[in-house]
Amino acid sequence: MERSLIESIAAALPADGVRVVRGVGDDAAVVRVGGKLCVTSVDAMVEGVHFRLDDGSASPFDVGWRALAGALSDLAAMGSKPGEAYIALGVSRQAGEEQALALMRGALQLATATGTVLAGGDVVKSPVLTACVTVVGWADDERELIGRDGALPGDLVGVTGRLGGKPGRPVPRLAEGRALARAGAHAMIDLSDGLATDARHIGERSGVSLEIELGQLPLDAGVSGWEQAATAGEDYELCFCVAPADRGRVERVLHEADGAPLTWVGRVSDGPPGASFLDEHGVQQRLEGFEHRW
Amino acid sequence: MERSLIESIAAALPADGVRVVRGVGDDAAVVRVGGKLCVTSVDAMVEGVHFRLDDGSASPFDVGWRALAGALSDLAAMGSKPGEAYIALGVSRQAGEEQALALMRGALQLATATGTVLAGGDVVKSPVLTACVTVVGWADDERELIGRDGALPGDLVGVTGRLGGKPGRPVPRLAEGRALARAGAHAMIDLSDGLATDARHIGERSGVSLEIELGQLPLDAGVSGWEQAATAGEDYELCFCVAPADRGRVERVLHEADGAPLTWVGRVSDGPPGASFLDEHGVQQRLEGFEHRW
Repeated sequence: MERSLIESIAAALPADGVRVVRGVGDDAAVVRVGGKLCVTSVDAMVEGVHFRLDDGSASPFDVGWRALAGALSDLAAMGSKPGEAYIALGVSRQAGEEQALALMRGALQLATATGTVLAGGDVVKSPVLTACVTVVGWADDERELIGRDGALPGDLVGVTGRLGGKPGRPVPRLAEGRALARAGAHAMIDLSDGLATDARHIGERSGVSLEIELGQLPLDAGVSGWEQAATAGEDYELCFCVAPADRGRVERVLHEADGAPLTWVGRVSDGPPGASFLDEHGVQQRLEGFEHRW
Repeated sequence: MERSLIESIAAALPADGVRVVRGVGDDAAVVRVGGKLCVTSVDAMVEGVHFRLDDGSASPFDVGWRALAGALSDLAAMGSKPGEAYIALGVSRQAGEEQALALMRGALQLATATGTVLAGGDVVKSPVLTACVTVVGWADDERELIGRDGALPGDLVGVTGRLGGKPGRPVPRLAEGRALARAGAHAMIDLSDGLATDARHIGERSGVSLEIELGQLPLDAGVSGWEQAATAGEDYELCFCVAPADRGRVERVLHEADGAPLTWVGRVSDGPPGASFLDEHGVQQRLEGFEHRW
């Protein structure tokens, strides 16, 4: 979606208030309620835009799984525990009941695997199969959560897993996100829009520049090169910034969390807010990702 | 949406747990967090299904307003205070940026009027303009909230406002819902599917029969008769059951809340769970409403 629309919407919204700790501009909104923090993210997937059923590239079960995975990945990027999920299902005449139920079964299986409770939703008619997933996570203390705005010059930039692949049933990095938050990471984002876009988000929100070395990117099997790895989007991995002194601790807690691969892919500088990308020869590359969350 | 799909989804979901106080089957889900209750509802509106832009019957501003009104109406029916709203917007090529922004302005205006904070969302491409609204409300105590399951034989059945009309910019009955909850109403629902369907929901969930006198229904201007008033759906009024002893108190608090009209339309019996509808001559009528929430 065009950037200007998201910026226009953000400009029309009220600034964060006392109750809303983090609003537009992070992976999820954070609201303070009593002694708890409520972390909420919404993710929509639309047939023909985010997936196709007619060419066999995705099954309805996969779509349900991935729709919930996308929303939970936002909670992972905040360092939040998952809580409840709500799914609004748009069911087309073509898809019909059976496919709608298969979609729900896919979401339910991932919900069970991650300790998320499917607690409600809505079912409406729609010209194409659509799943709008709202997830709510919980934290006891603001210090348990990480935003996009805390990166500091000198920080190391790391990513989990391998980039550019499109696993049929991705597992959101919930354990890794919480471990990174506890280990003191300064900023974190999930790579739903691809590293080219999401590294820039951290840089812009933090007022720093993320200098990414494209030759260091961990490529998933079958990925042609760093361009695909950095721009393909719909990655469910995490990108994070940590102080160099915390490097050993972060490597240890990530290893303990789930054994997810960790790769250091760059450094934070005090350059112009955003991100820059250097290829193997030290040549700066322009990378265009996409953009859709606000 | 077909009833069997909703029932199948409900059957696939886990039963309410300790954290989830109320799940599928009420106007909103209720989750206990720390000392608070988090009340959540999701409502989707799809172009060509819930509204049309091409014939001038709705403007994008109206659609944004109504989408949020529909979700807030579910909070009203629980007796909950509104908190935050999250909007996932599906934007078609035809609708474009301008209409998407007009939709957001409509939602924002109602949010401001009701003290709801628009705290985040998602923007995706879609074949038709779509708004999926998640609202979160808060309560301090379970006794502040009302479900659909507490109606008792002997209760009076009341409705707010006038039925069957389709106001362009309906105002959800938030103050009335909270006043009714505080006044001790036993069960409540909003009339998004129309009284014919929603009275049955209360009856089924409470294990009682709501005996509705169709001649008593308060018709909105331009409504042809009780059939339209009971089945048109997309009403933003509340239906509730109260003990006869509380009648005076309920009339007083509703008058104080907002001056919304109140009409007594029936009684609760220990007949077969559901609802029955008697016309002006005491003849039972079969009424078919629709059904889409789970």
